[in-house]
Amino acid sequence: MALKDELDIVIPTIRNLDFLEMWRPFFQPYHLIIVQDGDPSKTIKVPEGFDYELYNRNDINRVLGAKASCISFKDSACRCFGFMVSKKKYIYTIDDDCFVAKDPSGKDINALEQHIKNLLSPSTPYFFNTLYDPYREGTDFVRGYPFSLREGVTTAISHGLWLNIPDYDAPTQLVKPAERNTRYVDAVMTIPKGTLFPMCGMNLGFNRELIGPAMYFGLMGDGQPIGRYDDMWAGWCAKVICDHLGYGVKTGLPYIWHSKASNPFVNLKKEYKGIFWQEEIIPFFQKVSLPKECTTVEHCYIELAKQVKDKLNGVDPYFAKLADAMVQWIDAWSDINSPEGAKILANGPSKVSSRSSPAASK
Amino acid sequence: MALKDELDIVIPTIRNLDFLEMWRPFFQPYHLIIVQDGDPSKTIKVPEGFDYELYNRNDINRVLGAKASCISFKDSACRCFGFMVSKKKYIYTIDDDCFVAKDPSGKDINALEQHIKNLLSPSTPYFFNTLYDPYREGTDFVRGYPFSLREGVTTAISHGLWLNIPDYDAPTQLVKPAERNTRYVDAVMTIPKGTLFPMCGMNLGFNRELIGPAMYFGLMGDGQPIGRYDDMWAGWCAKVICDHLGYGVKTGLPYIWHSKASNPFVNLKKEYKGIFWQEEIIPFFQKVSLPKECTTVEHCYIELAKQVKDKLNGVDPYFAKLADAMVQWIDAWSDINSPEGAKILANGPSKVSSRSSPAASK
Repeated sequence: MALKDELDIVIPTIRNLDFLEMWRPFFQPYHLIIVQDGDPSKTIKVPEGFDYELYNRNDINRVLGAKASCISFKDSACRCFGFMVSKKKYIYTIDDDCFVAKDPSGKDINALEQHIKNLLSPSTPYFFNTLYDPYREGTDFVRGYPFSLREGVTTAISHGLWLNIPDYDAPTQLVKPAERNTRYVDAVMTIPKGTLFPMCGMNLGFNRELIGPAMYFGLMGDGQPIGRYDDMWAGWCAKVICDHLGYGVKTGLPYIWHSKASNPFVNLKKEYKGIFWQEEIIPFFQKVSLPKECTTVEHCYIELAKQVKDKLNGVDPYFAKLADAMVQWIDAWSDINSPEGAKILANGPSKVSSRSSPAASK
Repeated sequence: MALKDELDIVIPTIRNLDFLEMWRPFFQPYHLIIVQDGDPSKTIKVPEGFDYELYNRNDINRVLGAKASCISFKDSACRCFGFMVSKKKYIYTIDDDCFVAKDPSGKDINALEQHIKNLLSPSTPYFFNTLYDPYREGTDFVRGYPFSLREGVTTAISHGLWLNIPDYDAPTQLVKPAERNTRYVDAVMTIPKGTLFPMCGMNLGFNRELIGPAMYFGLMGDGQPIGRYDDMWAGWCAKVICDHLGYGVKTGLPYIWHSKASNPFVNLKKEYKGIFWQEEIIPFFQKVSLPKECTTVEHCYIELAKQVKDKLNGVDPYFAKLADAMVQWIDAWSDINSPEGAKILANGPSKVSSRSSPAASK
């Protein structure tokens, strides 16, 4: 699949030089957008031969001005800035502790290729197919599946999984420190309409044109009362909007190899408010209803921000601030993705490199 | 698991003597209820050593009297009579062209054991777990899964899958005669609340105490305008009722080896009305709502029968007849499962054999 002009890879910082080396066979044809999550004075080294642009906090401030406050600092949630400045149709985002996994036959898994397959084939949110993704080779819709639903709907999100270290919360990490995910489940499936899921940002593909403005990773990290809920927030919002607009969300393959567990004590500190807040947030998203007039993602998202402010402010004043940031995010997205956006971005990233640069040409 | 006193195996006829021989290591500890689907003058041979009771059409007529008309004739839908006369908590039902499958390591799959595991562990219908069944060994709930939902709900149905011949409708069989299911997906998952699925009766376990009265396989076969929708009908009704009563439905493992495809031309003749009817039936079941007062399966089912008569009669007068049969089924179920039920059944099956009989004692 020669989608290199249609997909950007967004990475929230790179601490590990091996990371890009390992992915080189799969990532090198694509453009990378690296969004440095921490201290902008530190330098991220990118191995030669990659085509990339790198944004640090100073760049984000310069590009977004006052609206930069909607982008998290010292947290991987900052990756959503990369979604905003991309000009491509598809995004793949991955964490720097995620390596190439092997399938049961021992072959390296090309995660990107599987995400693209997932995004290019339809989803089936209105009725469950017991043989999983009916569009995969060697399978189909089973007896009893309505023929009128067999065209499916356009897929907006492809949620990939993790071998080795599973994506557990701090309490589960603490209770089961030695648990490793060794089960390779050879399936892709649609998450049904009306069903929410915990979307993990470690290994995630999406159609930026369809759902990009809903992929806001919220206010986390520095100065915020919560962390590790950035992808969850994006997942709840995006799923509700996909359901409303008639887009599909798939989960399952591809797997990446999640190399190391983050510190459960640090995680607990970041998460603990989320752990009780989610008991109210999830019922809110399960009940939320968007008016028919909301026919664009931006419009849906602004409406959602309103309802967040209205209904979740009682949980914590943080949600009023978050609701304002949601609106700010959409403003910034609209600016940058307008015809004048190019001007805003002209002096954007602090570091740019392309494969055709002398350093990378050998 | 020594559940032999809690589970019956229900088989709608046995044409193939190899069938029980193949399953002997797994089935012999259990009691079998065989419901002969066709001509009662024909004799079904059961190999020695099995503990079973066999009902043919004459037996069904004798036991149910006028109410016997709710049980299909010359169709495997008759199996539900076996559900009704069982006295056990769990049922496993399987077709006689389903053999023991092998897992990827080459080991024989004990389908029954996996169904029991599925039925004894909870389901998670209110939120999607991306690592599939969180109660399986080596896995858990992922980050972002609400803790208040981690107890899950009681599982009522365990829907198993098929390697080799997939369960396709006649049009798909005709278009893809050579397609075989070779993909072993190592997963069990809950079908979310509010989502319907095509329930196949080939390899199915359920908790008879929780959902038995909803497992009516409808009016199919002899004298009826439709076939091959018996399990679908039971699936739609049972899922709607499970959702209403707060029970879970799981699908995935175990696999059986489905040995031969049924004739697609014969299937097309049986199915063709269902293929267009389902376009109206499924939206009906998607929208159906049961009143809060319906707190038992029987009550839910009678209410569903009313709504079927009311809403689907316009599709075809068959549905008014089916609605009457649904009520008759519940009447018969209640009779047989009442304290007086033993008397009704006293002279029930035409053939009974137990492992302790001389023929089986060697």
